[in-house]
Amino acid sequence: MNHPITRMAPTHAPMGQFPVENGELVIGGIPLTRLAARVGQTPFYAYDRSLLRRRVADLRATLPTSVKLHYAMKANPMPALVCQMASLVDGIDVASGGELKVALDAGADPREISFAGPGKQTGELRQAVAAGVLINVESFREVAELAKIGRETGCPARVAVRVNPDFELKSSGMKMGGGPRQFGVDAEQVPELLAEIGRAGLTFEGFHLFAGSQNLKAESIVEAQCKSYELALRLAQSAPSPIRFLNLGGGFGIPYFPGEHRLSLAPIGSNLVTISERASRDLPGAALVIELGRYLVGEAGIYVARIIDRKHSRDHTFLITDGGLHHHLSASGNFGQVIRKNYPIAIGNRMTPEKKQTVSVVGPLCTPLDLLADRMELAAAEPGDLVVVFQSGAYGFTASPMAFLGHPDCLEVMV
Amino acid sequence: MNHPITRMAPTHAPMGQFPVENGELVIGGIPLTRLAARVGQTPFYAYDRSLLRRRVADLRATLPTSVKLHYAMKANPMPALVCQMASLVDGIDVASGGELKVALDAGADPREISFAGPGKQTGELRQAVAAGVLINVESFREVAELAKIGRETGCPARVAVRVNPDFELKSSGMKMGGGPRQFGVDAEQVPELLAEIGRAGLTFEGFHLFAGSQNLKAESIVEAQCKSYELALRLAQSAPSPIRFLNLGGGFGIPYFPGEHRLSLAPIGSNLVTISERASRDLPGAALVIELGRYLVGEAGIYVARIIDRKHSRDHTFLITDGGLHHHLSASGNFGQVIRKNYPIAIGNRMTPEKKQTVSVVGPLCTPLDLLADRMELAAAEPGDLVVVFQSGAYGFTASPMAFLGHPDCLEVMV
Repeated sequence: MNHPITRMAPTHAPMGQFPVENGELVIGGIPLTRLAARVGQTPFYAYDRSLLRRRVADLRATLPTSVKLHYAMKANPMPALVCQMASLVDGIDVASGGELKVALDAGADPREISFAGPGKQTGELRQAVAAGVLINVESFREVAELAKIGRETGCPARVAVRVNPDFELKSSGMKMGGGPRQFGVDAEQVPELLAEIGRAGLTFEGFHLFAGSQNLKAESIVEAQCKSYELALRLAQSAPSPIRFLNLGGGFGIPYFPGEHRLSLAPIGSNLVTISERASRDLPGAALVIELGRYLVGEAGIYVARIIDRKHSRDHTFLITDGGLHHHLSASGNFGQVIRKNYPIAIGNRMTPEKKQTVSVVGPLCTPLDLLADRMELAAAEPGDLVVVFQSGAYGFTASPMAFLGHPDCLEVMV
Repeated sequence: MNHPITRMAPTHAPMGQFPVENGELVIGGIPLTRLAARVGQTPFYAYDRSLLRRRVADLRATLPTSVKLHYAMKANPMPALVCQMASLVDGIDVASGGELKVALDAGADPREISFAGPGKQTGELRQAVAAGVLINVESFREVAELAKIGRETGCPARVAVRVNPDFELKSSGMKMGGGPRQFGVDAEQVPELLAEIGRAGLTFEGFHLFAGSQNLKAESIVEAQCKSYELALRLAQSAPSPIRFLNLGGGFGIPYFPGEHRLSLAPIGSNLVTISERASRDLPGAALVIELGRYLVGEAGIYVARIIDRKHSRDHTFLITDGGLHHHLSASGNFGQVIRKNYPIAIGNRMTPEKKQTVSVVGPLCTPLDLLADRMELAAAEPGDLVVVFQSGAYGFTASPMAFLGHPDCLEVMV
């Protein structure tokens, strides 16, 4: 019954993507305090352009060259970032008419834009047809609407079918396929939908399968990609025309919480080589696509807030910052997390501290939910110092209730 | 081991605050479909002016006339609603410089505005001093800053001390006092803070105690008010001048989830009569204040979204609407709830249905978090019908990530 081995508490994965110089974090070549001065205010989000390039380059080096890389801009729709990504990847995936506008403005080729979403409105479908982008059809209603738009405008819609697979992505942070879902059309209904697409005269191009997101286990992603490929192959038998587009989804995760490790890309790359070779025989002319959002941009971004007060309450120390939940809902633990855990956080201008202290970092809101760090060991810090929340490049700024409690706006910068 | 008594599943409290005519919900005298036409779009929030008036009247009838009623505008800062509330209540509580502006624009008397928040910035403190409002001081730093502002401007700040009590509000949806907190100053540090306030030459007016929010048990609120009063009385002995203001907090809840019942006001009213009588002897000249946000406005508001698709997936039916998590984060279960539960929801244009059906109501976002109703029995509904989320007058619009996924803006209307 004795346990002589002491177990270490799990720690955050090292945040080595940003260099440290003279004790300061360096973002896009600029020391943090200078960047804050350049931005002219705190709080802000900063995204490092060189890290976006490096992440895409690493993926290109690991995945077969025949596989196309798409950016799912829901992860971060900042226009300047989408411009940058449009120049790096092979296509952009949009989730609304609003996102479609940003992608087109960014110069993305409409032929390489695809549009998915379980509740596309008639106006959005019209926009998408007019733009000439690929529409991932998710219901019988959408096919009927697109047929009508085609008759009225003379533009046949380009469509792929978003399939709700008959399996789930294991170990996924968020399951988006398997069982009853609002996303896509159940695999077993797809043959009927394909017949409908053929009758409606739409231009059929392929399939979109997306089993889940935020997965850190390469073997689960490999399994999902294999199953997705097999399912697509089976469904292709009912297609009205050859498959030209096969989106195998993404789901590549990044480490947020203590004990999580970075995803190993190598097994995914090897598996995609195999699938790619098979596809060249089974589905000649079909482009294989991997769609990534968070994985491309999440680690390249930080959220920065300034400490405005330091308070002791009953033997506990609170650092109170000018930013919080209203700008970064996920870091507060209120966006899909069942149990709140700390994001990786540092005092960005005291990266090589002599003294450390266990503190909680909170925002300025009148709610106990406004918590950025719960009893973390950080560099001993004072008002004026800069709190940095890492892993904030995806689902940060736009996934937050900015208007809550009427505080000043947050900014975003690309460096 | 037998359980012959079948236990009924808990149900939502009846949402009788809105009348039904010809099968339609009526908001501010306007049938829902006509209101949607008047607004010109879905989704929208609608707040019923007559229900705001009725709620305040009910409170006035139950609480002693000597108790002042404040509106905590963080619950709903829509300018037109704040104008309405300013004419109904005795004061407005603001939580930021931004809210202060809205309250002043609404015509609230600065003498009856109070400003609380754990991270007040220097600029906000300057605004508050210039406006002449009461500042609920929450740290020693704020006292020093206010002393400096006073020396520079010649305006002595009006201050109350926000106390972090040495007890918790039992059965509270959200605890905001007791233990270590970022809110207020620990009761045991208050005498020292009061001395500091005296030395700094600030105008001391009283205390603000706020133990927690969203409480549905009258006896817990009564207990917290009694303890808050006793604590204030004790702390008043160290005050540099007589107490003129004593905010006993609020914490009155409204029923959101199945099995929850409306708060019984009567015992709270009786208790406040007793406290009020005691205060007239113990603290002559002190105004007792109850501060309410959610309780005043929550039940007067609905969120309305239109069904744009109806989808069957593996024997489950989904109603897909044009609104969702991005407009109403709380109803999706992602704002402070540990276990997701359904808000009360109805098909607002089919309130006397012949046929019902168990469905899930989801929004248009590409995330499984975008869920407004999980397997609820609702009137059988079709695209075009209007989904209504009740209890949406507080922490709805501004507590939601509006920009998420680039969908059209939501509107708010007062009727």
